[in-house]
Amino acid sequence: MKAAHHITVVKIGGNIVNDSVALTDFLKKFSSLKGRKILVHGGGREATALAAALNIKTTMIEGRRVTDADTLSVVTMIYAGLINKRIVSMLQSMGCNAIGLTGADAKTITSVRRPAEPVDFGFVGDLKSDSVNHHAIMQLMECGLTPVFCAITCTAEGQLLNSNADTVASEVACAMSEVADVKLIYCFEKDGVLSDANDDSSVIPIITPESFNSLKNDGVINGGMIPKITNAIKAVERGVECVIIKSAAHLCSPSSGTIIKS
Amino acid sequence: MKAAHHITVVKIGGNIVNDSVALTDFLKKFSSLKGRKILVHGGGREATALAAALNIKTTMIEGRRVTDADTLSVVTMIYAGLINKRIVSMLQSMGCNAIGLTGADAKTITSVRRPAEPVDFGFVGDLKSDSVNHHAIMQLMECGLTPVFCAITCTAEGQLLNSNADTVASEVACAMSEVADVKLIYCFEKDGVLSDANDDSSVIPIITPESFNSLKNDGVINGGMIPKITNAIKAVERGVECVIIKSAAHLCSPSSGTIIKS
Repeated sequence: MKAAHHITVVKIGGNIVNDSVALTDFLKKFSSLKGRKILVHGGGREATALAAALNIKTTMIEGRRVTDADTLSVVTMIYAGLINKRIVSMLQSMGCNAIGLTGADAKTITSVRRPAEPVDFGFVGDLKSDSVNHHAIMQLMECGLTPVFCAITCTAEGQLLNSNADTVASEVACAMSEVADVKLIYCFEKDGVLSDANDDSSVIPIITPESFNSLKNDGVINGGMIPKITNAIKAVERGVECVIIKSAAHLCSPSSGTIIKS
Repeated sequence: MKAAHHITVVKIGGNIVNDSVALTDFLKKFSSLKGRKILVHGGGREATALAAALNIKTTMIEGRRVTDADTLSVVTMIYAGLINKRIVSMLQSMGCNAIGLTGADAKTITSVRRPAEPVDFGFVGDLKSDSVNHHAIMQLMECGLTPVFCAITCTAEGQLLNSNADTVASEVACAMSEVADVKLIYCFEKDGVLSDANDDSSVIPIITPESFNSLKNDGVINGGMIPKITNAIKAVERGVECVIIKSAAHLCSPSSGTIIKS
């Protein structure tokens, strides 16, 4: 069953979504990827700019944005409307038969609203290990479609929620790995995970659970990279073949980036 | 081939989309419709309000709005983002497995930008008789999905365009009638086409191409109803089984409204 399908899940963030030259270049490369593929995109500056233009107050708690009702409308407009349809229309013009999705569409991702205690982040949706409907996603791919997800999800009761795009990518990859061999690529500002933050050429080619421990203990990997790689290792442990962290510009170069695998 | 499928295409406009009580009531009725169905929704006040809040100048020519680049962004945000996903999430909560679509998604509707002569309406997309991809829509329905279209379409070159929701509904119905028996329902403020504008109970039950001519000549049908019914008769001539103009509140009452058929 599983061996018959290979799926590449690619996640891009605001740094690409906000830059029309980089986005066009990335989407051309994504279109040219062979085989079945899924794109997950983050937000970007446009949501912040729209909220500011509408005088919607941004509330931050512990450095994280609170999604109140107005902010939820803004991110739904920007992520599910403007950015998602811009990407889908560009992919169509490049010959990639894309379909834009939130978690509500075809019931692909059912999230759970984050509890209001200890901190109420508002309309934020967390994903559980059974949130992603791999059957529905596979059906769309069997129609020859390339799913393009924004990070808007939906509860079983029909409440749209704002989710984390890295998490959506990871949960989609884990769920699809139940029925296919899945490679998960996080596009990153740098060429990969660096052993020397000041040297862009110091990409660590492979990280395994074992080498990650030494790299952490030696302080080579630190700060914000620790949760990223911890999550990547969790995805590998849950069945994703490998997680690759690389530059969007090198999406199609097989030897570039950092591969995280067991 | 054709007789195996029955499809109901329903179009709702701003009067329902803007009214959360009416929208909830309508979507419950739509969810309960038996068989395969497609929803097409118009815009509403939210696009106008967002454009005003963002100080986007509304230019009208001959009473029709010009879609400049900023207005296209606004309608993409509101129609494809906010309204479409609100409807899809509500339908999901009612047990209807909806999928929200623009014409770009799954290449369902490929439009042509309206020529800039004699009047340049900007990013407006006209539909041709082969614009709607009935194969793609049928594939989604065969996955058990209920397509929910907003009136944002896309050229073959990937340019998103603003189209007329009545036309999208009519072209979708005509295209699907190549592979199915199609009923097209336009939800309307009144219970149907009235023979006396001042008497809401004066609904004309049936209009045929012949009776339409006499009703027009006698002045019973006039003004804005003439193009509406002319378009309905064209749809019937192109293979749609019947077009029904009725109140959204009576969607499920088989004997209500005006039926236009040959």
